[in-house]
Formats: sequence, structure tokens, C-alpha cells
Amino acid sequence: MNVPPSGELPILETVRWRNGAVRILDQTLLPASEVYLELRSVDEVIGSVQRLAVRGAPAIGVTGALGLALAARNLVHTHPTREGTWSLAALRPDAERLAAARPTAVNLRWAIDRVWRCLEAAAPSVTSERLSEIALAEAEQILEEDLELSRAMARHGRDLIPNDARVLTHCNTGGLATAGGGTALGAVLLAHTSGKRVFVHVDETRPLLQGARLTAWELARAGVPHVVQVDGAAAWTMRSHRVDGVFVGADRIARNGDTANKIGTLSVALAARAYDVPFYVVAPRSSFDSRCPTGEEIPIEERSREEVAGFLDRIATPASSATWNPAFDVTPAALIAGWVTERGVERPPFNGG
Amino acid sequence: MNVPPSGELPILETVRWRNGAVRILDQTLLPASEVYLELRSVDEVIGSVQRLAVRGAPAIGVTGALGLALAARNLVHTHPTREGTWSLAALRPDAERLAAARPTAVNLRWAIDRVWRCLEAAAPSVTSERLSEIALAEAEQILEEDLELSRAMARHGRDLIPNDARVLTHCNTGGLATAGGGTALGAVLLAHTSGKRVFVHVDETRPLLQGARLTAWELARAGVPHVVQVDGAAAWTMRSHRVDGVFVGADRIARNGDTANKIGTLSVALAARAYDVPFYVVAPRSSFDSRCPTGEEIPIEERSREEVAGFLDRIATPASSATWNPAFDVTPAALIAGWVTERGVERPPFNGG
Repeated sequence: MNVPPSGELPILETVRWRNGAVRILDQTLLPASEVYLELRSVDEVIGSVQRLAVRGAPAIGVTGALGLALAARNLVHTHPTREGTWSLAALRPDAERLAAARPTAVNLRWAIDRVWRCLEAAAPSVTSERLSEIALAEAEQILEEDLELSRAMARHGRDLIPNDARVLTHCNTGGLATAGGGTALGAVLLAHTSGKRVFVHVDETRPLLQGARLTAWELARAGVPHVVQVDGAAAWTMRSHRVDGVFVGADRIARNGDTANKIGTLSVALAARAYDVPFYVVAPRSSFDSRCPTGEEIPIEERSREEVAGFLDRIATPASSATWNPAFDVTPAALIAGWVTERGVERPPFNGG
Repeated sequence: MNVPPSGELPILETVRWRNGAVRILDQTLLPASEVYLELRSVDEVIGSVQRLAVRGAPAIGVTGALGLALAARNLVHTHPTREGTWSLAALRPDAERLAAARPTAVNLRWAIDRVWRCLEAAAPSVTSERLSEIALAEAEQILEEDLELSRAMARHGRDLIPNDARVLTHCNTGGLATAGGGTALGAVLLAHTSGKRVFVHVDETRPLLQGARLTAWELARAGVPHVVQVDGAAAWTMRSHRVDGVFVGADRIARNGDTANKIGTLSVALAARAYDVPFYVVAPRSSFDSRCPTGEEIPIEERSREEVAGFLDRIATPASSATWNPAFDVTPAALIAGWVTERGVERPPFNGG
């Protein structure tokens, strides 16, 4: 157990720039093994995002930005002295592929667009080498900001958690879902290190068990009391216990507040409404998409049969049965008590960043 | 694929009396293997019920009754000519242990009580050998009746399913949950064999995956189109598709209609209410407990850590994390559109059998 200093948010090294590579903690191997991978090509970065070795909207945003910096650096190695405008054109396919690695979380495209705009501004007057430095500096800036955003969200979220609280969470929204701080789980972790007693019901979060594997791992190492339970138990938790709040993250939030998050979130929100439990979304402003008026416009990724049909190598579903695997659902704004961002607790409409 | 004659409910040999033993289909091995076990002691019967080799409220009722007949038969082998009243006293501990094998489904105690009353009536004037025959005859009668109840429930339930229907179900309520016919899934299967087009969304039903393993197996062998999905997708199914009805079974129904069923049922019922999807409970009258005024009085079994902490034999949850594993929840009567029994579609209050 690794109890951080009182009053501070524990920080994980989920994704970092190290040794000229994008270094990630491989989340597919947690909690059994803590393995870090150094990704040295754009293909490796995209593969890691797609197989959820790194996941969570803010974390894949940071990973995408670092991936673009990696692409720029790799270009320098083959064409060290080409001019910036040529480099920009050469980088465009990689930027597009990175931004399209997963469709639902808007942070990915947001972060890549942000690095891209820096490159565009500089390209006409610099070499590819300088452009590579600019990309890395901006990506590192996004990473540092992400840690600061986590700290700010955690403070605002913590203030919504009473002492002796029982809270429920779905999926993983801790350090592993961000550059290392956390969104919804960050609020819970900070409440704990700030001296509040808090007990957490952790939805296991099928199909990939981010709750059982990742949230439980983060809570256990921080010493926060918790239970892992099947997703179907969330409503019964709220019916059979006093629950003070549900805290979840977001992959994309529309202008009207409709919120896409891990499949199963909508079920939890409906139960919270039925049992008068406040339901909070905790997400940085980069998860808000002003181009989506409502949740109807948010694309929902459908993932592979294997995830639903079994877990790891254990198959439960008959080969002759089809599966349906939407990775996300959309919770309507009317079920959400508040959106906790780096700015505080906000309400729709959300117009612009 | 094993398509039954048009208009008939397919019948499985879930539990039968064979060769002086209770023969069950071991549901823990489905869908990978179809293995039948001959149980020759009360301990084996209790063990099979507790590890869910046989499960589903009506099925464990029939199994309990046959288990008591087995106990009576085994007693004859050791004491062939003792008189009935002595035998009854000797059988009481086995009857009690069988009835207590699982706490939530009321059918288990109901079936054992029914066999017991026959034994009590006959005991003063017969030998243990005759008593054993009486026990078996009553248990076989309960089994035959259960198949007839399934057929009756399936007819009433089928009439609630329109043509070209999309329905959602949770857990397994087919032939495997009964002596061989089915409750909620029986209605769907009969709709299919009656020529209605029906598409089924199957909740996988964590932790033990009765949906993915058993319901999918029954639907696949009957040729009914279906998808298996994670439990968290149920609400999103109803939000993103037109769903004509939710059909579930019951482990115990209180006088006011509150219904205990597999954990996760309450979540589905809340979603059905939110999206105006009729939510039906299909259960024989033996699942109604007039001694429970409301759901508050229904005991909820809590099962082992291992079921939640992993998926089949693959462990997901950290060793340092606690788990919570309520096997059932209680859906309030207000969320239920109708209770389909062998008599038709009923409404509370439910006073007496």
C-alpha cells in the first residue's frame, strides 16, 4: 500500500515521454503485472490505444499528442533537414490515423488538433528538426496541464463528497484514465487523502473489467476501503444502502450535457435517479464537444465479439450465438446532477471550450 | 440445431429420476459440454444445488422433491421394514437440509413441504418401503406438473409477444431453470415455434453468466435469433432500439408483487420503466410466498467472493480488494407490468397459492 501525503492526489505514470519514446503502463496486464512499454512507432501507439493498453479519454488524448510528437521525431531521423511545411504534409497521415484510433472520446482529436495547430503556425519558417521539438513541447505541455486539471477536478469533486460517504463508481476514472491524476476517481482519492472516510462500491465494468482490474487496484494501493461488485448490483446497492453519490467520467459531453461514457453508465444513472442519489460526471473541458448539440451526434464505438463472449481466454458464449458490444452509452443530461470540470461544478449549455 | 415441432415448447431433461438416482444436466459445464450426473446421496443433491449445477427456482424445487425421495429410498436400503413414523423422524434432518440448501427461491421449501405432507399423512400406517414409494410418486408428480405449468405459462407469455418482436431477458429462465420447459424464456421459445419472429437480447448475467452460457445455448439450439450482451447494455438497448418487452423469471414473489430475481433484474426494470417497455415476470404459483407481505421480508443469499472476483477461472480483482456478491435483488411491484403464471396474467395482491 502506497499512501500519498495527506491532502494530495496520488499520481501514476500512466503515460510519459521517456528515452525518445512514448512510455505507457500496459493496463491490459493489471492488476497481475505492472509492465511499462516504450512505444517507438505511430503504429505501436495506435495499437496500444486500440487494444486499451492505454485507455480513458484524457489518457488517450495525452497519448495521441505524444504519438504525434513521436511521428515528428521519427520523420527527423529519416529527413533531418527538410523544411517545416514539407514535414507538416508528411505528418498529416499519421496525425489523421492517430486521431481516428478510437471514435468516441473527443479528447484524442482535441489533443492532436492542439499539437497540429502549433506545427502549422511554425512550419513555414523552421526545419523538421525544430518542428519535432515544437510538437514534443506542446505534447508535454498537454500532459502537464492534464495533471493540473486532475488536481483541480479532484478538489472540486472532493467537496461534493461528505465525510463517512458511500459512493459508487463505474469503469476506471483514476490515474490510469488520465496522464496520472484522475477524474471521478481522483475526487474520491483526494477525499481519502484529505482525511474523509469514504467507502467505494466499484462496478466491475464488463466487458473489460476496468473496475475490477484497474479501479480496485488504484483504491487498494491508496488504502481506500472498497468492494468490487457485478454491474447488475449497482441499482440494488442504492436500494439497499444509503449511497451519497455516483461519480463517473466521460468520453464525450454534448452541448446540452448528454454524456457518453462506458457502457452501463446509463443503467447506473437511471438507478441513481430512482433512488435520489446525486449522479456526477467528472471530466476536463477537453471532453466537451461543442460541435455535438446533443448525445444523438456522438458516435458510439462498437468493439469486437471476443470482449463480450468471454474474458481473457475463457469463453462463455456459444460459438453459434451472436454478440453486441457497444463500448459506450449516452446518459441524458436530465439524469446528471452536475458536471465537475477544472473550473468547478458546471451546468449546460456548454458552448465552446 | 434442434427445431421442435411447430407450436410446441421444447423440453429439456434438466432433472429426472433415473436408475434409482436424481439425474441432472450439470449446468456448470454448459455450453462447452453436455454432461449428466446421477446423484445418489442427499449430500450430492445439496452440493449440486449449492454450486448451481442445477439452478432456477422451479428446477431446484423439483430437485429438492426428488432429493427427499432419494433420502427415503436410501433409508429403505438400510432399514427396509421399519414402520413409517420412525422413517419420517429419520428423514426430517435430510428434509431440513434440502430445504435450506439455498435461501431465496421459495419453490425449494414449497416442493419439499409438499412431499413431506404426503409422507406425514401416510406414515402412521405404512412401512418405510411404502413411504419411499409415496415420496417418489409425489416428487414425480411435482415434476410432471412443472412441465405442464411451463407449457401453460409459455402460452400466456407468448400471447404478450407481438410478431417481429424484440425482447430482452436476464439470467436463464428456459428449460434449464425448470424441470425442462421454462418460465420467461419458455414464452419466447413458444412464440418462436408458433411462427412469430422474435429477436432476443440476452443479458450475459454476471457473475455466473447464466445468460451467455445457458440462455444463449437454449436459443441457439432452438434457432431463435439473439445477441449476447453485457448486463450494462440493457438500458442502452432500450434507449437505442424499440424493445417490445422484458421477460424475466422470479425466485420469490411477495404478496404485494415485489419480486426477487437474479442480481441485475432491478436495474433492467428501472430502465424498462424509463423507456416505457413493459416488464413481465413469468413464474409458477409455487414461486409466490404469501408469508412475505413485501420484498423486505425476502432473504437475499450472498454468495462467495470467487464468483465476482473472476470470470470462470480467470481472476480479475486484486487479492487486496473485497467483493460484494448478493445473488438476487428485489424489483418493486410498481415496476412490473404483469405476473404471468399458469393461470394467466395476474396482478397483486397475491393471497395464498
